[in-house]
Amino acid sequence: VRRVPRARARDRAGAVLAGLAGGDYDAVDAVYVVDEDGRLQGLVRLRDLFVLPAERPLGEAMDARPPHVRPDEDQERVAVLAIRHRVAAVPVVDEGGRLLGVVPAQALIEILRREHVEDLHRLAGIRRENDQARNAMEAPPARRARDRLPWLLVGLLGSMIATLVVSRFERVLEAYVAVAFFVPGIVYLADAIGTQTEAIAVRGLSLSHAPLRRLLGGELRTGLLIGLGLGALIFPSVLLAFGDLRLAVSVALGVLVAGAAATTIGLLLPWLLSRAGKDPAFGSGPVATIIQDVLSLLVYFTIVSLLLI
Amino acid sequence: VRRVPRARARDRAGAVLAGLAGGDYDAVDAVYVVDEDGRLQGLVRLRDLFVLPAERPLGEAMDARPPHVRPDEDQERVAVLAIRHRVAAVPVVDEGGRLLGVVPAQALIEILRREHVEDLHRLAGIRRENDQARNAMEAPPARRARDRLPWLLVGLLGSMIATLVVSRFERVLEAYVAVAFFVPGIVYLADAIGTQTEAIAVRGLSLSHAPLRRLLGGELRTGLLIGLGLGALIFPSVLLAFGDLRLAVSVALGVLVAGAAATTIGLLLPWLLSRAGKDPAFGSGPVATIIQDVLSLLVYFTIVSLLLI
Repeated sequence: VRRVPRARARDRAGAVLAGLAGGDYDAVDAVYVVDEDGRLQGLVRLRDLFVLPAERPLGEAMDARPPHVRPDEDQERVAVLAIRHRVAAVPVVDEGGRLLGVVPAQALIEILRREHVEDLHRLAGIRRENDQARNAMEAPPARRARDRLPWLLVGLLGSMIATLVVSRFERVLEAYVAVAFFVPGIVYLADAIGTQTEAIAVRGLSLSHAPLRRLLGGELRTGLLIGLGLGALIFPSVLLAFGDLRLAVSVALGVLVAGAAATTIGLLLPWLLSRAGKDPAFGSGPVATIIQDVLSLLVYFTIVSLLLI
Repeated sequence: VRRVPRARARDRAGAVLAGLAGGDYDAVDAVYVVDEDGRLQGLVRLRDLFVLPAERPLGEAMDARPPHVRPDEDQERVAVLAIRHRVAAVPVVDEGGRLLGVVPAQALIEILRREHVEDLHRLAGIRRENDQARNAMEAPPARRARDRLPWLLVGLLGSMIATLVVSRFERVLEAYVAVAFFVPGIVYLADAIGTQTEAIAVRGLSLSHAPLRRLLGGELRTGLLIGLGLGALIFPSVLLAFGDLRLAVSVALGVLVAGAAATTIGLLLPWLLSRAGKDPAFGSGPVATIIQDVLSLLVYFTIVSLLLI
């Protein structure tokens, strides 16, 4: 919104307060101090203005390093700024630093709520984003099914690819049926690791400025550590339960490699989307999951083929 | 916060405005109109107060049905009220309707942001909830692994149960290796359906007052419709690719039943948690996923055993 109270640094608190009466403003969280060219110099919260001595110039009382954003700023970063600076409305300035208006608290609240529901729905692959979560729970089943089927159909295609992958290793399965026992477990674990990375990446990518290589290196190391931890538990369990050293090595190695791959995919997919100008949250959800599943299957069966046959 | 501007309905706008100067308030989004007993009667947004004629009594200009909450209200419902009524701060009243204070915009913004990150982390099974998503991406890998392992260990236990389930059907797999081809696909699809239900339930349960039976009935019908839609595509595909009628029926039926079971679990788990006073978001995430996976495996292999052997 554009109509906000403005004042000069030399204006006195009492006069500014009196001048507010009769003004038709869109947001009155603060009075914004600007110079002759309209450049933002600071802000005085209205709450503070009420207690200032009437003779005090605003310039002496203002917050001289106010948060501010450009008109094209990411909505989420605006909200983070508001939280960090403890203001309810964030000023918007142009390239020259001239005050254009503010993002009011009301809008920030709506943005945060909408982003929240959107992220959840994208993670789950629900098409229509509805601000009223209640609607999604109380709408007629036929409409709900229609909203949810599209992503599932993409998932179905992925499932077919997964089926194809497993069927390519038919001989391995025929020779060694125990290999099949671990398929759901390995796919699940790699998925769980990947989902963690996605959840962090979806929010973190819009805030972090670190280069991808560093982020990727960190995630990969995290994934390997997690994989090593899980593998250390899986190896003796499988060895004990099945008494087969090569099977135990295959399964433990499968979790390790698939887990590391999952963290990579979990970071790369949201990153690619955010580079392409899309919301990284699209890179989570059901499509990312099936990509990871197929990858995990390939990793596991390749290891099994090499070690067991 | 408790210190907010109050006024009587008969007070005139000009006098109220003049009276604000010198008052030390925590939030000045609006002036709250109360009666002699301190009961909330309405509110006048400060923005509107500035443009009111000085002689106008507040009672004529106030929003006489202001949103209000009790001190023990769910944080999220407060935010939804603020959005619906387009106010930035929500008044808090006691049982007698007496104004206690307000939840200011600043607090609402922080609440929404925190709930957002928390939900994402719970969905992904990350232990430590950190308001700074950036931290989670830039922290040392060892600490990150430590934050993420606990839920994965629970998941590992679940994976072992999944392995056990599949190994119980060893004979089926030996007799009919093609049964194994569809395991990842069916588990994935049932999971995707269940995750959708969870994402809706996590947000919806705190807002909806419909009884569980109705919600469950609706979700079950939705799940069956989705399952029927997917089954209608799966049946001919499997029949065409493998030329085996009984296998095609088993797989399609497996998706149908597992999908319906997934919607039930996806709704029941968050509901049970919310009844137990816990955040329903805990009912999503990696533990819910492995429960669904095990259930899907049981459903699929039982159907296969009955139809194929």
